[in-house]
Amino acid sequence: MSEHEHAETTATTDESTSEQLVELAKRRGYFFQSSGAYGGVGGFYTFGPQGASLKGNVEDAWRDRFAVAEGNMEIDAPTIMPEPVFEASGHLDGFDDMLIECPECETSSRADHLVEDNTEYEDAESLPIPEVEEIIAEYELACPECGAGLADVAVENFNLMFATNIGPGDSDPGYLRPETAQGIFVEFPRLKEYARNQLPFGVTQIGRAYRNEISPRRSIIRTREFTQAELEYFVDPEEDEPDLESVADVEVTLYPASEQNKDDGDEIETTIGDAVEEGVISSPWVAYFLGVAKPWYESVGVDMDRFRFRQHLSGERAHYASDCWDAEGEIDGNWIELAGFAYRGDYDLSKHAEHSGDRFTVFKQYDEPKTVERATVDPDMSYLGPEFGGAAQDVVEELESLAGRDRTAFEGDTVAIDLDGETHELPVEKTGFSVDEETIAGEHIVPHVVEPSFGVDRLVYTVLHHAYREDEVDGEERTYLDLEPEVAPTFVGVFPLQNDAELEAQANEVVADLRAEGLSVTYDDSGNIGRRYRRQDEVGTPFCVTVDYETVEDEETTVTVRERDTTDQKRLPVEGLAETLAEIREGDLEFDEL
Amino acid sequence: MSEHEHAETTATTDESTSEQLVELAKRRGYFFQSSGAYGGVGGFYTFGPQGASLKGNVEDAWRDRFAVAEGNMEIDAPTIMPEPVFEASGHLDGFDDMLIECPECETSSRADHLVEDNTEYEDAESLPIPEVEEIIAEYELACPECGAGLADVAVENFNLMFATNIGPGDSDPGYLRPETAQGIFVEFPRLKEYARNQLPFGVTQIGRAYRNEISPRRSIIRTREFTQAELEYFVDPEEDEPDLESVADVEVTLYPASEQNKDDGDEIETTIGDAVEEGVISSPWVAYFLGVAKPWYESVGVDMDRFRFRQHLSGERAHYASDCWDAEGEIDGNWIELAGFAYRGDYDLSKHAEHSGDRFTVFKQYDEPKTVERATVDPDMSYLGPEFGGAAQDVVEELESLAGRDRTAFEGDTVAIDLDGETHELPVEKTGFSVDEETIAGEHIVPHVVEPSFGVDRLVYTVLHHAYREDEVDGEERTYLDLEPEVAPTFVGVFPLQNDAELEAQANEVVADLRAEGLSVTYDDSGNIGRRYRRQDEVGTPFCVTVDYETVEDEETTVTVRERDTTDQKRLPVEGLAETLAEIREGDLEFDEL
Repeated sequence: MSEHEHAETTATTDESTSEQLVELAKRRGYFFQSSGAYGGVGGFYTFGPQGASLKGNVEDAWRDRFAVAEGNMEIDAPTIMPEPVFEASGHLDGFDDMLIECPECETSSRADHLVEDNTEYEDAESLPIPEVEEIIAEYELACPECGAGLADVAVENFNLMFATNIGPGDSDPGYLRPETAQGIFVEFPRLKEYARNQLPFGVTQIGRAYRNEISPRRSIIRTREFTQAELEYFVDPEEDEPDLESVADVEVTLYPASEQNKDDGDEIETTIGDAVEEGVISSPWVAYFLGVAKPWYESVGVDMDRFRFRQHLSGERAHYASDCWDAEGEIDGNWIELAGFAYRGDYDLSKHAEHSGDRFTVFKQYDEPKTVERATVDPDMSYLGPEFGGAAQDVVEELESLAGRDRTAFEGDTVAIDLDGETHELPVEKTGFSVDEETIAGEHIVPHVVEPSFGVDRLVYTVLHHAYREDEVDGEERTYLDLEPEVAPTFVGVFPLQNDAELEAQANEVVADLRAEGLSVTYDDSGNIGRRYRRQDEVGTPFCVTVDYETVEDEETTVTVRERDTTDQKRLPVEGLAETLAEIREGDLEFDEL
Repeated sequence: MSEHEHAETTATTDESTSEQLVELAKRRGYFFQSSGAYGGVGGFYTFGPQGASLKGNVEDAWRDRFAVAEGNMEIDAPTIMPEPVFEASGHLDGFDDMLIECPECETSSRADHLVEDNTEYEDAESLPIPEVEEIIAEYELACPECGAGLADVAVENFNLMFATNIGPGDSDPGYLRPETAQGIFVEFPRLKEYARNQLPFGVTQIGRAYRNEISPRRSIIRTREFTQAELEYFVDPEEDEPDLESVADVEVTLYPASEQNKDDGDEIETTIGDAVEEGVISSPWVAYFLGVAKPWYESVGVDMDRFRFRQHLSGERAHYASDCWDAEGEIDGNWIELAGFAYRGDYDLSKHAEHSGDRFTVFKQYDEPKTVERATVDPDMSYLGPEFGGAAQDVVEELESLAGRDRTAFEGDTVAIDLDGETHELPVEKTGFSVDEETIAGEHIVPHVVEPSFGVDRLVYTVLHHAYREDEVDGEERTYLDLEPEVAPTFVGVFPLQNDAELEAQANEVVADLRAEGLSVTYDDSGNIGRRYRRQDEVGTPFCVTVDYETVEDEETTVTVRERDTTDQKRLPVEGLAETLAEIREGDLEFDEL
C-alpha cells in the first residue's frame, strides 16, 4: 500500500530536462499520452515501441533478480478483484484522497496539494479534513483553474479505486486492484502449499495496478494505470533470518527519519552491515532487500549520485508497518519514490483470515514434539440435565472454559460457576474433570510479510532522465540517451552506407549474425548516415555498425563500429563481430580495448 | 473484435481429461479460480508459479515470431480507455450479449445459450431478440438454476464492457478495453511516424482484455479477464503483397464455409499455396498469417491432429471483414477458437478518423509526381461587394465550388450561379477564373488492416490439455505433461538422492552449471526420489538429474539423467552435461542418441 510520493525541492529547480525528455519520448516512441486523437485523458500513457522494449527489459531484469535469483515464485493474478478483498485489506474504507470541487468551474483538486502548494504546511495529507478546510478558508485559497474562492467549500474523501460491476446488475461490485500485492495475499492458503508449507518463501508479481488520481501529474510518474513489480516475502518472525552477510558491504545513502526531523539533518553514507549494527535500519529483512535493490538499481541505469533510501516518518507509515524505507531517485531537484520496502508484520494475512474465515497460517513443526498438560471436563449429563434443564449446555460450556483458564477451581469437592450473573456450586465428581498429557507436533503461525514494492513506470522515467545527455559533435548539438546495454531497446543499429543492393545484402547478413548471437538489432537504411546515427543516439542504442564500399571490396570484410557516448569509430572484421559485441554487452570487454 | 466461440461436439464427448487437468492445474500451480478464500468469482483465474511461467514462455514465443521475426513494433497501452474510443469502434453500441434474468431467483443467463442448449436452434446469437423471446416462450424454457419458467420474461442487450469512471464524478466514463487492438488503432497517427510513414508495417501488443461475460464457463477458456496477443498489420491494399512463397508449402487443415454449409462437408487437407491458388482462402494476407501461425502453434505444443483453420460463415463475420478464419483446437470433442485472422479493410482507421477528426492516413508518394489541371477562381471583390453586398462571400464559395465541379460553365462571357434558389449571371472576367497545372507528389490513403488476434489463456489451456498423458510406470499409474521444452516452466529438475551434505553440495553445483547455460532449473530435495520424479512429471519437466553416491565417490563425476516421457535413465558425466542438455533443448540432439 505504498507509493507515497515525497517531493523535496533543492535550491535549483531545473525542469528543462524533463520537458525535453517528454518531447524526445514522444518523438522517438518511448511514451506519450494515450488517445491523443480524442484529446487524451489525464493519467494514461502508452509506451511506444522503444518504451515497451525498455520497460520489458527492466521487468525482465527485476524478475531475474527478485524472483529467479532469490528462488521466489512468480504468479499472474487478475486485475479486477471482488469487494470483500478490499474490505479486508482496508482499501475500501481508507484508500482516499482529499477532494475539493470548485463550485464555479467544477474542477476537482486535491485539497492537500492545494494547501501544500500555497501555504507553509508541508504534510497536509496527514491532517484531518476539518483542519484542511479551515486552512483553505484562512488562506482564502482559490481554484487553480478559474480562480474562484474555495473557502467554505466542503473537502471530501474520494476513494482512489476504480469501481466496476462484475456480471449484470450491481450486486457484485469489483475494483481494479490498487496494488498487485492483494492478488498474492488472498491466495496465500494455496501458495503456501506450492511452497510445501515451508517458511520463508516469496511470491512475486509484475502487473498493472490502478489508482483513480484526482489530479494525475508529471508524465508517467503519477498515472492512473501503472505497472508494479512486487515481492511478498513470508517469514517466520521468530526463526527466519535474512542472509545479511551477502549484502553487508553494499554502500548506501540513507536518509533516516531522525535526520529528516533535525533542522540540519542530512543523508548519511554507510553500508547495509553498519546500518543494521548501529540500528539505523531496524528490520534486518528490510535491510537485506535494500542491499539487494541498490546494486540492482545501479545495473539498470539509475545514477547512484541521485539515489537514496529514505525512511518513512512515523506519521507517514501505516500503523502496522514497523519499519518502512523508500528508494528515491532525484528528478529535476525533486526526490520521487521508486520503491517501498516495508516490514508489514502479520497485518495482511490476519485481515484476510478474519474477513474470509479461511486459514492464512503455516503449520510450524517443533524440532521435538512438546508434551503439554491439558485440563478437560466430561460432565455427567444425567445429573446436569435434571438440575439445570435448558441451561445445562451453558453449564457445560462454562465448565470447559473454566477448566481451560483455571484448573485450581476444581481442586476442592465442589466447583463454583457463574451463569447469567448467578453463582452455582456443583460437585467436582459430576464434572468429569481430569488433567491429561498431550503431545503437540507444532503450531499454526501467521507469517510476517516483508514487502519490496517497485513502481516500474517511474523507474523507466528515472532511467531515461538519468541517461539524458546533450553534447556537441562535429559542431552540432546532439542529444543522446546513455542507457545501460542491459535495458536499451536496441543494442546495435546496422546501416548500409547507401542504398545499394550489395551493401544492403551485406548489412542484412550482419544483422542475421548479430541476431543469432542473441543481440537486439535494428536495421536502418533511410536518410543520410549522420541522421541515422542521431536517431540511434536519441533512442540510446549503444553501438552502430555501418557497411560501406570498403566492406564489400576489401579482401577482409570489415565494418565501422561506432560507440554511442564517445562517437568513437573503429574498423573491425565482420568475422567474430557478433561474439565481440556480445562480450561487450556482458561487460567482459570494453570498446576501448578493441 | 474476434473470439467468437464455435463449439462443435463430436460423437464421443469425454470431459474427463478436462476435469483431471483442472484438478492437476490447481494442485501443481498452473491455474485456479481467484479469491477462493472469499468463495471465488466466476470468470477470474490466477496463474500459479507454473502457469505464470508457461504463459510467459508462450508470450515470449509469440513475441519472437510475430513481433521480432516479422520486424513489427510492440507497444504497451493502458487497459482503461475513454468512451469516445468505443463510440468509434462500435463496442459501445454493438458489443452485447442477450441477457435474461430469472424473475424468481434473479440468476442471469445468456438467452442465446439457453436456446442453443435446449432446442434445435444452433446459432441463436445471430437471431433478433424478439425471435429469441418467442422461442423461449414456445419451448417453455426454464431457469437453469431454479427451474422457474422464463416465457414472457424480457430478453435484453447487455454490454460486455466493464464500465468505470475516470476521475471524480461520472463525467468521464471509461471502459476496460474488450480487445488490445483499440490501443493500437487510436494511436495510428503517431505509430505511422515511428514507421516513417512507410507501409506495410505491423504493431503488436500483448496484454489484458476484459469482457463482462454473463455466464463465464469452462475454466480459463472463457473468462472475464484474459490476455490477448494481437498484431495489427497495416497495408496499402493496392500495392502491398505478403511473402506467400515463404509459407506456400505449409500444410494445413482447412474447414471452409462452403464445406460447413454442406450436409456432408468435411475438412480439407491442403497447403497454403494451393489454398490461395484455388481461392479457398481469398485474402493472401490472411493466408500468409495462417501459414506463419500453423508451425508456430505446433512449436508451442498444440497437437496438429487436433488443430484446424475454420472459415467464418457469412453470418458470423463482421460486415466490414472480407475474410476471416479462426485457428481452432479440439478439447474434449469440442473445437474452441484459439485465434482469429481477419482482413478488416479500412474499417477501424476510418471510424477513428470520422469520430476523432484526426488523420488516420498515410501519405503515399507516387513513383513519379503526377501533373493535374486545377481550375481556380480569384474573384474581383471590388465588383462583387457592391453587387451582392452581404452575400458576396456566398458568391465566392459558389464560384469556387462550380470551378471545381464544372469548368465548362466558365467558357462563355458570363457564368450563371445559384444563390438561395435564384440564378445570377456575372461576367467571367470578374471571377478571376483560370486553369493551372499542378504537380502532385502523392495522396493520403487509409491503410487496410490485417489482424491476427490470439487468445493466450485458452492457448495455455489447449497446450496443457494436449500434453496431458496417463500411463503406467513400474506398475503404478502416472500422470505427466508432455510439454515442449520451449514452453515448459522448468527444463531440468535436480535432486540429491538423499539428504546428505555432500550430495546436496554436488547437486547445487550442477544447478549452477545448468543455470549458467541459460536453462531453467528446479532444485528439489524433499520426499523420496520417486515422489520427486512424479512431481516433475506432473508439471511437465522434460529432464531430471539425480546426484547419488556414485556421483561423489567415482573418479569420473557422473549423474543419472532421466527423460520424462519414456522415464529412460542414462548415466552421464557432469562435465559437458549443461551443453548436452542445451543442445537437446535447441532440438539439435536427441536423448536417445546419448
